Amino acid sequence: MLRHVELPTRVAAGPRAVVEDMCQAIQSLREELLIDGELLGIGIGSPGPLELPAGRLRNPPNLPGWDGFNLREELEERLQMPVVVESDGNVAALAESVLGQGKLLGIHSLCMLTLGTGVGSGIILNGKIWTGATGMAGEAGHMTIFPDGPMCGCGGTGCLEMYASATALVKAAERLREQDRAPGKKFWNDGDGPLTARSLANSARRGNPEIQGLFAEAGRALGIGLASLINILNLPLFVIGGGLANSWDLLSPSLFEELGRRSYVYRLTVKGAPASGGLHAGGTQVVPALLGAEAGLLGACILPSLSC
Amino acid sequence: MLRHVELPTRVAAGPRAVVEDMCQAIQSLREELLIDGELLGIGIGSPGPLELPAGRLRNPPNLPGWDGFNLREELEERLQMPVVVESDGNVAALAESVLGQGKLLGIHSLCMLTLGTGVGSGIILNGKIWTGATGMAGEAGHMTIFPDGPMCGCGGTGCLEMYASATALVKAAERLREQDRAPGKKFWNDGDGPLTARSLANSARRGNPEIQGLFAEAGRALGIGLASLINILNLPLFVIGGGLANSWDLLSPSLFEELGRRSYVYRLTVKGAPASGGLHAGGTQVVPALLGAEAGLLGACILPSLSC
Repeated sequence: MLRHVELPTRVAAGPRAVVEDMCQAIQSLREELLIDGELLGIGIGSPGPLELPAGRLRNPPNLPGWDGFNLREELEERLQMPVVVESDGNVAALAESVLGQGKLLGIHSLCMLTLGTGVGSGIILNGKIWTGATGMAGEAGHMTIFPDGPMCGCGGTGCLEMYASATALVKAAERLREQDRAPGKKFWNDGDGPLTARSLANSARRGNPEIQGLFAEAGRALGIGLASLINILNLPLFVIGGGLANSWDLLSPSLFEELGRRSYVYRLTVKGAPASGGLHAGGTQVVPALLGAEAGLLGACILPSLSC
Repeated sequence: MLRHVELPTRVAAGPRAVVEDMCQAIQSLREELLIDGELLGIGIGSPGPLELPAGRLRNPPNLPGWDGFNLREELEERLQMPVVVESDGNVAALAESVLGQGKLLGIHSLCMLTLGTGVGSGIILNGKIWTGATGMAGEAGHMTIFPDGPMCGCGGTGCLEMYASATALVKAAERLREQDRAPGKKFWNDGDGPLTARSLANSARRGNPEIQGLFAEAGRALGIGLASLINILNLPLFVIGGGLANSWDLLSPSLFEELGRRSYVYRLTVKGAPASGGLHAGGTQVVPALLGAEAGLLGACILPSLSC
C-alpha cells in the first residue's frame, strides 16, 4: 500500500459529485505514483447490491438516490482506464483469501462476514469470488435469524444484521442505558458519552454483565447464521471481520456454543472431532479476520490484477 | 431407464446385509443387460452425511449402526468395478440440472430442496455438484428457521426439516386431529385412516381450512429458508422436489409471500421486476421439480458418466 486517501462520501450531493471526488483523488494519485510503476486498472469495493459484471447499483439501502447508477461505466468514462467494481463484502473476502487467513491457512474457499455498520459478506470458492447469477451473492447479512424479529432496512425481519452489527449492538445498549436511568436502577458505568462498539467492549471486559450479555446475544445470532452456512456450504473456512471482530473474546463463546449445537456438519468436521474409521474428515475453521479495517481496501487493490 | 428394481432396506440386519442385497440386484441386472451395452460404473445416491470422495457414511440419522461405514469401498470390493457415491440430495439436484428443470430452462447453477421424509438438498454450480470441503455441503434441510423451534434429529432446533417435510406436516395434522376429536369439536373429514401428505393435500383441496393452514405454514418455513439461500447464493434457479412438491398449489402462495418480503435479491431479480436504467438483472426462478420421485435414481445413473 503506497498511499491512502480518505474522503467523506457526499451522499446528499448525489452520485455524480461523489464520483467526481473519487476521480480527482485517483488522478492525483496517478500523477504522483505513475513515475515508478504501471497502472493495471482501478478496483472498487462498493456498498451493494450491485449488478455484476455491469457494475450498476440497485437500491443500495445506504446510498439513497443511487438506484440504477452505473458506477463502473461512469468511472471508466471519466478516467479512460479499466475499472472493476465489486461489492464491499466481496472484496474484503477476496483480501482475506489472498492475503489474510486464507493465505495463512492455505485455504482458498471461504465465507467472510464483516460486522460493521451492517453485516457484509462474501463467498470465495476455489480462489474466485462467487458473485452469483447477477452479482448479488454473499448477502448473508440478510439471512433470517429470528423470523419474527425487528424490521430490517432490506424489508425483511430478524436479519443477521439486526443482531450482529455494531449498529445493532449499540442500539441494544442504548435501550439498556435508558432503562438503567430509571430511579432506583443501578449505576451505568460509561457515563453519558455516545456509545460505540469499542466503548461497549471495554465495559464488558471491565465486568458489566448486562453488556457482556449483549455481546453474547450477538454471538448467538452469529452462531445460528454460521451453523446454517456451514450446513449449506461445508466450506473449510469462515472468517469474521469488521469492527465487532475486535470483540472476538466476547462474541465467540456463545457463537461456538450455537455452532456445536446446530451444525452436525461442524461437529463432524471440527478440528479434533472423533474421526470414524481412521479417516479424519478435515476441519471447519471459524476465525477472526487477519487484515482488520483495511481488508476491503486491499481486496479492491487486488481486483484489477485478477480481471484486467 | 431400462430396468427398475426396488428392495426394502434391511436396516436392522446391518450395513453388510444391505450391501449384500444391493450387490445381488446389481449382479443380476448386469447379467441381464450387459449383452446390449457397456457398463461404465455404479452410481449410488445415499442418505448422508457422507465423507466424499471417500464415500464413507458419518452418523447418518436414518441409518443407525452405519457410522464410519465405507459404502463405496465395500461395493467396489464386492463388485470389482468403479463405484461413485453421492448424497441422495445431491444426485436429485444433479438430475434436475441435467435432465429436469435445469435442462428445460438452460440453467446449470441451482439449488434443489427435496421435501420427503426429511428435507434433502443439493447445490449445483456451473453444472457440477458443490460437495463442499468434505462432501457434506447441501444440508439446507438443517438450516435454522425458528431458533427456538422443536428439536431435530440433527441436534439443532427449528430446522427447515421440522416444518417443510412430509413427516412434519403429517405430525402437525395428527396433533390437529387429536384436538378435533375432543367432544363438541367439528367433524374431521378424513375419518380414522393413517394420514399421509397425499391425503392431507386432498383434504386441503376439498376446502379444509385447518389443513390448508398447515400447508401454508410449511410454505412459510420454506419461503424463509429460500429467502436466505437466495440472499446468500444469488442462484438463478431453485427447484422444489419430493412428495410434498405435488402440493405446490398449497405451499407456494405463502412461500412466495415470504420470499418477496425477505429477499431483496429476489425482489431485484424476479422475472418482471422493474429494471433500473434499462438493464434487466436476469431472473431468479423458484419452480417445482420436473422429474418427480425418480430424480434421485436418474441422478445416480448420471454419476458414473461424470466421474468414471
